[in-house]
Amino acid sequence: MSLNLQTHTEHFTNPLYLESGRILEPYDITYETYGTLNEDKSNVIVICHALTGSHHCAGTYEDDTKAGWWDGLIGSGKAIDTERYFVICSNVIGSCFGSTGPISPKHSHDEPYRYKFPVITIKDMVKAQRILFDRLNIHRVYAVIGGSMGGMQALSFAIHYPNFAQKIITMAATYATQPWAIAFNKVSQEAILKDPEFKQGYYESEHIKKHGLSGMAIGRMAGHISFLSPESMQNKFGRDYKLTDGLYELFGKFQVESYLEYNSYNFAKWFDPLSFLYITKAINIFDVTRGFDSLEEAMKKVQCEFHLISFKNDLLFRSYEMKEMNEILDKIGNTNHSYIDIESDYGHDAFLVEIDKFEDYVKDILDGKREI
Amino acid sequence: MSLNLQTHTEHFTNPLYLESGRILEPYDITYETYGTLNEDKSNVIVICHALTGSHHCAGTYEDDTKAGWWDGLIGSGKAIDTERYFVICSNVIGSCFGSTGPISPKHSHDEPYRYKFPVITIKDMVKAQRILFDRLNIHRVYAVIGGSMGGMQALSFAIHYPNFAQKIITMAATYATQPWAIAFNKVSQEAILKDPEFKQGYYESEHIKKHGLSGMAIGRMAGHISFLSPESMQNKFGRDYKLTDGLYELFGKFQVESYLEYNSYNFAKWFDPLSFLYITKAINIFDVTRGFDSLEEAMKKVQCEFHLISFKNDLLFRSYEMKEMNEILDKIGNTNHSYIDIESDYGHDAFLVEIDKFEDYVKDILDGKREI
Repeated sequence: MSLNLQTHTEHFTNPLYLESGRILEPYDITYETYGTLNEDKSNVIVICHALTGSHHCAGTYEDDTKAGWWDGLIGSGKAIDTERYFVICSNVIGSCFGSTGPISPKHSHDEPYRYKFPVITIKDMVKAQRILFDRLNIHRVYAVIGGSMGGMQALSFAIHYPNFAQKIITMAATYATQPWAIAFNKVSQEAILKDPEFKQGYYESEHIKKHGLSGMAIGRMAGHISFLSPESMQNKFGRDYKLTDGLYELFGKFQVESYLEYNSYNFAKWFDPLSFLYITKAINIFDVTRGFDSLEEAMKKVQCEFHLISFKNDLLFRSYEMKEMNEILDKIGNTNHSYIDIESDYGHDAFLVEIDKFEDYVKDILDGKREI
Repeated sequence: MSLNLQTHTEHFTNPLYLESGRILEPYDITYETYGTLNEDKSNVIVICHALTGSHHCAGTYEDDTKAGWWDGLIGSGKAIDTERYFVICSNVIGSCFGSTGPISPKHSHDEPYRYKFPVITIKDMVKAQRILFDRLNIHRVYAVIGGSMGGMQALSFAIHYPNFAQKIITMAATYATQPWAIAFNKVSQEAILKDPEFKQGYYESEHIKKHGLSGMAIGRMAGHISFLSPESMQNKFGRDYKLTDGLYELFGKFQVESYLEYNSYNFAKWFDPLSFLYITKAINIFDVTRGFDSLEEAMKKVQCEFHLISFKNDLLFRSYEMKEMNEILDKIGNTNHSYIDIESDYGHDAFLVEIDKFEDYVKDILDGKREI
């Protein structure tokens, strides 16, 4: 059977009231669905994407060769089986792939928002998705699953909308972004802001798409470091040096340097710098305990079946941050949760690249075979 | 008693034959001494500095308030006691604090070398120091001690000049720079190179000293991350936010961001970008096994009493890299070495900031009280 991939954009004219007190109005949300909604709408799985991800999490577009970012996990016969489930993934507000973000034109005229765009939070992203699902007449879902910033969204669903999902899986995330992760984002933000081609946000998007912004690439290099681990880099590159380069040439390159250059300058052509600033800001200020007296008070809100998956060598969001949530759930007598810390050399990227390490676990959760 | 701090510069007209096959001629080496050389010259301790360090490792200049970078370790009554030892620390070639580097004027005319400066290796830095000591009529020393790039130099002394030092201490270093560290350097290098103010190396040094180079600062932010650890950042900053800033201001800052900005933009005013490129290149291509069949063959060269100190949370040069050297020394039957892996949350910076964690160990080694 086919994946039944469909891409849509919904337009909303009612104001979206943001955590900051500001208003986004009107706004669009672009989303993708796979599989078929069953009659009683009991087979919906929501997928939440990470910083530079998008609604395109599975399948391949006709005019493209690159599959969606979780294609290994989502599809016919896969752990998130599109023969059984109706999967929805939406592009977060603030992003640059269809949903309203800082380069979207403002309501009244055609000028992009740029710095006039309001700061968005993870809670806002989740709220906007809830509104989208309401529009689609989906008021409860079977599961919400996400990794990294997607994991933050999944956690936020669990706490702020306790009755929305039956099961929630939060992977490779944290309950509040720690300074180590904020510092990596800082490098990226600073590199963007100081690039003269960024023009204080008044760059031409078409120019960026064609040439890329060096600042974005430099920041992305730092990002790549945070997504990997010393072990994964050692396994992948060792001290291999480009055969064409002399060891004593100032600009001779190790393979790891070549990898960083290639991927980062590519990235700079397809991701929007203002969106990057806004989404990293959302990640930095993410703190699910905001508005609660403690993490414990926040975790008491969780009503669904709740699962935490961390990766041992994740240097961006450390295992112990997830472990802390698990311990608190134990402490408050929550008997409907699980936690595993997966062995992996890959670092943070494991949630994207080592699907074989957790697909059975996810499948078991969805099949109701995971003992709590 | 006084520290007897003296700063000198020696000028060399004989060519320095470099590992690359190129020649540096003439060249200067600036160095600092503390304490007093005894009659039989048996009390010399050589200190080797790290990437952005200098010959100024102890004491405070009359017109300054900032003490040398290892002032807590070196001085009267301290672990490296200047009442007993004559301590020498020289600025490495390629650096920008007096020894010849890429912004030094070339021999024949007054234009700086810039990209015409040859690539320098750690072995070259050590060779130049040996030549300096020969000039000072010091042909054997009591000890060589260094951390980070200084530890690489100390290790190189042990392998390439087996009879030069009686005791060598290598801290927070590695035998060959791994891709994780190279990747961090790559961010810095790229940020420098892509800064239009860098002008392909044709910047005005005075302009840089006054205004700093944004690219240097951005790279330094990445550097700071690599020097710290998630734990040390958590302890130091947590999620503290600047009281003057709004949480939902796009450019509102966490304390960790403020720290990175302050230190990095300061750094950009006092360190030379070309020197940074050359020294990080030297670190990247550091591999003490070059010219040997294996690390084992290289370690067989070690004749002195040899000590390795690593720090558990060092994310730049990992404990296991030092541990590997220790295991090989054990394996080849070397009975004159020691290794400790020090508990510390500080990460790589521990060798600079947690002196209390290893000063007794260093003192015992120097006093001959450390059991091997």
